[in-house]
Amino acid sequence: MALAEIGRRGETGVDRAAFSPEDRAARRLLYAWGCECGLEASQDAIGNLFLRYPGRKRELPPVLTGSHLDSQPSGGRFDGAYGVLASLEAVAALARAGIRPARSIEVVAWSNEEGGRFAPGAMGSQFFGGWRTLADVLTVRDAAGVMLGDALQETLAALPEASARGAGPVPSAYLEAHIEQGPRLDRAGIPVGVVRGIQGCLWLEYEVRGAAAHAGTTPHEYRRDALQAALSLIGRLRDVCLKRSPSCRFTVGRMALEPNTPNTVPGRATFTVDFRDADPVAFAELGRELRAFTLSADEPGAAHAPATDAPAPCELTVRELFHHVPEMFAQRMVDVVANAALAQDYPVFELVSGAFHDALFVSRACPVGMVFVRCRDGVSHNPLEYAAQSDVTAGARVLMSALLELAAE
Amino acid sequence: MALAEIGRRGETGVDRAAFSPEDRAARRLLYAWGCECGLEASQDAIGNLFLRYPGRKRELPPVLTGSHLDSQPSGGRFDGAYGVLASLEAVAALARAGIRPARSIEVVAWSNEEGGRFAPGAMGSQFFGGWRTLADVLTVRDAAGVMLGDALQETLAALPEASARGAGPVPSAYLEAHIEQGPRLDRAGIPVGVVRGIQGCLWLEYEVRGAAAHAGTTPHEYRRDALQAALSLIGRLRDVCLKRSPSCRFTVGRMALEPNTPNTVPGRATFTVDFRDADPVAFAELGRELRAFTLSADEPGAAHAPATDAPAPCELTVRELFHHVPEMFAQRMVDVVANAALAQDYPVFELVSGAFHDALFVSRACPVGMVFVRCRDGVSHNPLEYAAQSDVTAGARVLMSALLELAAE
Repeated sequence: MALAEIGRRGETGVDRAAFSPEDRAARRLLYAWGCECGLEASQDAIGNLFLRYPGRKRELPPVLTGSHLDSQPSGGRFDGAYGVLASLEAVAALARAGIRPARSIEVVAWSNEEGGRFAPGAMGSQFFGGWRTLADVLTVRDAAGVMLGDALQETLAALPEASARGAGPVPSAYLEAHIEQGPRLDRAGIPVGVVRGIQGCLWLEYEVRGAAAHAGTTPHEYRRDALQAALSLIGRLRDVCLKRSPSCRFTVGRMALEPNTPNTVPGRATFTVDFRDADPVAFAELGRELRAFTLSADEPGAAHAPATDAPAPCELTVRELFHHVPEMFAQRMVDVVANAALAQDYPVFELVSGAFHDALFVSRACPVGMVFVRCRDGVSHNPLEYAAQSDVTAGARVLMSALLELAAE
Repeated sequence: MALAEIGRRGETGVDRAAFSPEDRAARRLLYAWGCECGLEASQDAIGNLFLRYPGRKRELPPVLTGSHLDSQPSGGRFDGAYGVLASLEAVAALARAGIRPARSIEVVAWSNEEGGRFAPGAMGSQFFGGWRTLADVLTVRDAAGVMLGDALQETLAALPEASARGAGPVPSAYLEAHIEQGPRLDRAGIPVGVVRGIQGCLWLEYEVRGAAAHAGTTPHEYRRDALQAALSLIGRLRDVCLKRSPSCRFTVGRMALEPNTPNTVPGRATFTVDFRDADPVAFAELGRELRAFTLSADEPGAAHAPATDAPAPCELTVRELFHHVPEMFAQRMVDVVANAALAQDYPVFELVSGAFHDALFVSRACPVGMVFVRCRDGVSHNPLEYAAQSDVTAGARVLMSALLELAAE
């Protein structure tokens, strides 16, 4: 709640953009709390902030745990911030109890996970996992024209107490706690979830081109109505996905018509499909099909035309905007989290993450695992985002048990 | 083509907003041409410009003919302007031939038909027909904040040679020539059309409210997807209309989603329906049904939910934006135009106007008729709008014959 004061908007909202003054203040607060537990601070070139709880055998690769401090522009108090603070609490509890495992445990706050100010998101963990280089992102600008490189330098300079670090060391494992951002734990009445992996995600944009025409004067048989063709196409895309993979997620979230006036037949309809699936085979197969979809001869806008002077059918272009394949976590990491839940007397409720997280990108560097915490009604990216104190405590307890297990050898 | 130079955009485009400097220049040019034929100019309070060709019996109600000089922001050379100039040409031909009918013939240029600058359109003919008072529109402002009353005063003052006129005289009949703005004459290969009436037109806005949710984390059974509910609703609305009245026009031309991002289930989907029908009974019945439509239990976003903790279904609000009932012209007016076409050796091709025109609003004052002229591919409201010289000549010839008939008694 103290952290949520930094960038607070209204009663419970948070606006803490990456590399902003609020982000810097949040990092300084995290650093100060880390100092109270005797943690050693360092920052890498993209501003990922590490707080090390030294283990007995400093030569062993450390265990890494954390999440991010930046928020959505109209975000809540828990997304990201919770995982960083749960990690800090877990380490602080070990320190208070005088427990010092073999491996060091590093708490990390990844830079710019949300991407709301500097796109794309997950830059810190992508840099760490080797998905992106620093040069890829330094010249990205925000809406005000500020260059990421400049904002990053200010951010690094605002915490001179942290030592600069290079690429290493490669951790032995990474654990991330996060609110679920979905309704399943809430509906099941269970405080914590054991995450088995992260769904694959494919974003496609479909552009249907017909011909704009007067809504009053153009008979239906002469129309090339881009919206009607798009509606039929959406129905077929959705049917294919839900029938073939009932556990997939299919969403048309963005749509634009041209010219978008009541009395003109749309000449162009553009919409996005967000398709997610946890099953790598279904994800790959359906992804291929979605990319290769064509307009059917039955689509309105192409059909009902007299054979003699039929208008040309609508045209379709499919573009891929983004994709990542499903990432199923190593069984050992799932087991460690499940055993930690049992050790803390919570039921084991396994689920697959619908959203991606920094853990997805860190998984190139080391095995990863995640602990989910129940959030009210599954609401996230919203000032109304809420998780009960008993649940965030439960998540931190499970995280601590799992960290102890991972740091033991 | 000389008139199309005023407000010309590119090769063949026209941007001549109502009461703009371009509109004033067009009125002055029309006035100058009228002077060459000895016509008497007058303007009423809303700026409708009348050019009178005096008849032998000035005490008889005149015959009125014309259209409008203002254009769409990205309009063409023919919409409106053609009808005014065809009327002027018809009268000029009579004057040149020394033919003076019993009744006076008045050429009229109606103010602000398009409504692109000052909404709504058809103000001049609506004022004339008694649909609106001057007080209703004087305080309307354009996008730059200019008040219609001020722009109107400047426009009236720019033609001091025209005398001011009141509400009278009520004409005995009104004829309007216009490009078809649709493809039927072009497809049929016929230069002029005899208009039987103007379709009824109903604009409704449907607002479907669900709940915005994360596209990755929200299972389908918990979604209240406003777009999916809207798509199903559009399909049912369209089916009802096309099945029950195959000659109707059903268009969804405008749609907006909120929040309209790829990875969020739409929480709100708003779309318009433009429904048109020439049959008064079908128009009234289907209009009632469209206004009273409800979301079906089968609509996605309302369905597939487990009985125990089903999310609330989406909610629907229907708003009426605009409507006018079908206006079928008096049989005598249709016959006069058809006979004029025959007299000029053109085939009689009857059709119903899909768009509304000033004639619709004048019809409260007197019987009205319309002559349509073939336009290439039915394109209108577009710089590519085009009608062949032989076709615009054909329309003016038919108009002249019909005017002679109407002005005879």
